[in-house]
Amino acid sequence: MHLGEDIDVDDFVICDYRVTTDLPMADAANAIAAEQSTGTWTDLSTTTSKIVDRYGARVLSIDGDLIRIAFPNEDFSIDIGGVPQILSVIAGNLFGLESVSKLRLEDVTFSKEILSMYKGPKFGVDGLRDLLGRPEKPLVGTIVKPKIGLSPKETANYVYEAGAGGLTNSKDDETLSNQKFCPIEDRTVAVAEALDRLESEGHRMMHAINVSTNGDKIVELAEKVQSWGAKELMVDVITCGFAAVQALAEDPSIKVPIHVHRTMHGALTRDPLHGISMLPITKLVRMCGGDALHIGTLGVGKMSGNPKGDLANLNACLDPVGGYRTVMPVCSGGVYPGMIGRMVQISGKNVQVQAGGGVSGHPGGVRKGAMAMCQAIDAAFQDIPVTEYAKDHTELHEAIVKWGYK
Amino acid sequence: MHLGEDIDVDDFVICDYRVTTDLPMADAANAIAAEQSTGTWTDLSTTTSKIVDRYGARVLSIDGDLIRIAFPNEDFSIDIGGVPQILSVIAGNLFGLESVSKLRLEDVTFSKEILSMYKGPKFGVDGLRDLLGRPEKPLVGTIVKPKIGLSPKETANYVYEAGAGGLTNSKDDETLSNQKFCPIEDRTVAVAEALDRLESEGHRMMHAINVSTNGDKIVELAEKVQSWGAKELMVDVITCGFAAVQALAEDPSIKVPIHVHRTMHGALTRDPLHGISMLPITKLVRMCGGDALHIGTLGVGKMSGNPKGDLANLNACLDPVGGYRTVMPVCSGGVYPGMIGRMVQISGKNVQVQAGGGVSGHPGGVRKGAMAMCQAIDAAFQDIPVTEYAKDHTELHEAIVKWGYK
Repeated sequence: MHLGEDIDVDDFVICDYRVTTDLPMADAANAIAAEQSTGTWTDLSTTTSKIVDRYGARVLSIDGDLIRIAFPNEDFSIDIGGVPQILSVIAGNLFGLESVSKLRLEDVTFSKEILSMYKGPKFGVDGLRDLLGRPEKPLVGTIVKPKIGLSPKETANYVYEAGAGGLTNSKDDETLSNQKFCPIEDRTVAVAEALDRLESEGHRMMHAINVSTNGDKIVELAEKVQSWGAKELMVDVITCGFAAVQALAEDPSIKVPIHVHRTMHGALTRDPLHGISMLPITKLVRMCGGDALHIGTLGVGKMSGNPKGDLANLNACLDPVGGYRTVMPVCSGGVYPGMIGRMVQISGKNVQVQAGGGVSGHPGGVRKGAMAMCQAIDAAFQDIPVTEYAKDHTELHEAIVKWGYK
Repeated sequence: MHLGEDIDVDDFVICDYRVTTDLPMADAANAIAAEQSTGTWTDLSTTTSKIVDRYGARVLSIDGDLIRIAFPNEDFSIDIGGVPQILSVIAGNLFGLESVSKLRLEDVTFSKEILSMYKGPKFGVDGLRDLLGRPEKPLVGTIVKPKIGLSPKETANYVYEAGAGGLTNSKDDETLSNQKFCPIEDRTVAVAEALDRLESEGHRMMHAINVSTNGDKIVELAEKVQSWGAKELMVDVITCGFAAVQALAEDPSIKVPIHVHRTMHGALTRDPLHGISMLPITKLVRMCGGDALHIGTLGVGKMSGNPKGDLANLNACLDPVGGYRTVMPVCSGGVYPGMIGRMVQISGKNVQVQAGGGVSGHPGGVRKGAMAMCQAIDAAFQDIPVTEYAKDHTELHEAIVKWGYK
């Protein structure tokens, strides 16, 4: 149901919400629009029709359980507030409204005015490809596993073996920070030496050091990590906040790409009727300058996922928007070589495929696990069925024997 | 079911999760413990029994759908990482595990070692009471409404009227930041003048200016806002991150209390079977140094709530822990005068009761709305039924006529 109010889309931020309510949907929609802009649960002596007309959110349409609400640009703050203020408008108190039992922010379309306040990625797909000297094939990476417990030397050895097997990328896992068993300085230095050794042997690779920490400390930490030789940084965007990504991306002293992990997102994204879908999160990460972002495994991996949603995230990384560079979509989570063909058929070639256990769980160890991953990528790139390609690629064959294929 | 492993609680961070799964609960518990510490979905060539024994999480007990998991202190990072790293361990990838369909972090008990890394509130209940010269009665406040649209002068006038009616506290709402209609500098200066005028008339009051913004910018903004005369700051902890609260609380230049709003929490907290309950959030806010925190309305207000959960939050604000100062629990959200007696019966007197529409929606305007709130507090403080007290307190009577009582 289109409600007939014609608006200039440049003047509004437009949100799609999925609403579960016992009320008539129009009443629930009005309650949401009011709570998030100029209204509250009762009438006020202090409001005026001028305020409601100018700053009130508009219900644009109701279609089944989906409602579309437009927030005037003027509801958003200037210079101060950032993504936290945007979230307080489009994803604030509405989740607790008594009139709805569940509510999910499915999508958001930012106006040009809001987009112009953000700069997007410094590197993105093209920048990562340039740094790695890999113009066409999907990037192929690993997460060092076990996620905690390895020493700096063991971590560096893992990275070296992964690179020797052909991987273009590796990274710390999300809980690895500065624990006693693996101090971040020692780890960064050791990994940098491994990457230098690989480069001297003719292979370019990057490893993202996890700099996830308090937002007021992250640029300082990243500068240090960069000075210790890091070629990429990793940030957990949900636990650190979008501003942490933005601070790194916009600081002129940070000259390496930012790999964005999304740990904890499932607390917000998993219920199909409540919370916040990944799509607004993806759009905000791109605005803030993430260069690569975990988007799920397109229905092929072992983690809980949503194929249609993952594909929408991938498109939000790659579609033209705001004049921004594109973001490298990262398929990660329960990935193993035998599923890569199917995944790349869906993703296309601008993707980073990444496996932790799917590399170091290989019967032949990390190097052979990396080789199997690269073989699977080569098969996918040439549109050769993985079982066909495995016939004369032993490492891939062994991976298929262990984990199967799709 | 206690699983028989005796541990020294000082060596672990202990989490309670509510789990919905088709698997045997023990299998799901083991999958969660593994994913969040040393394991992944497959066996690894790179792990060792030493790593698993030392850093692996332990399943302590299974009781119906509640499981208790202990994470070794050594899994947590030192100096670097902060709350984001804690969250990545206790509330990270587990929400997306295929083996569980829903999962909720219900509670967390931090070890002394982790608690000692955090300083807690600088002011808390006693500090707020000292600043306001109000040693015993509940604090009573308002949120300036409508939440956006008023000019600095209108905002200051609202605050003055609220103080003239007797309120001890007021605050910006969560979406108000630095919009054109109400620039933060002009608003802070105008409100400071209103508060000074009230003080010169013998009434002490504080107003929290919303400094919610990017974590790397918040201390600088708060310093400015303080220099413009702010007597309290507000932070939206879910959208800004716990680190934003911690940065303000631990910065020696910030000399005013921090009022912590929790907008967007419903995306995490509302589903009783999924996400993160308010209790861990409350505990983290206290560790990070919030002086006052929204905890819900104890089942009495109009917002979606959970009386038992709200009371647990209140206790987590006030119970002795970590040698920290207490946090002022704030009951806010659909509050009106006629419900205050019931609410204070449950909360006790160490509470800040707060109403937006319940003040400015009063038929007599803001000042009379404030008077009605104060009268309701006085009645509650003296254990007089609100309808009894309303007999010779006109403003309270009018509020009850409009909104009823509980």
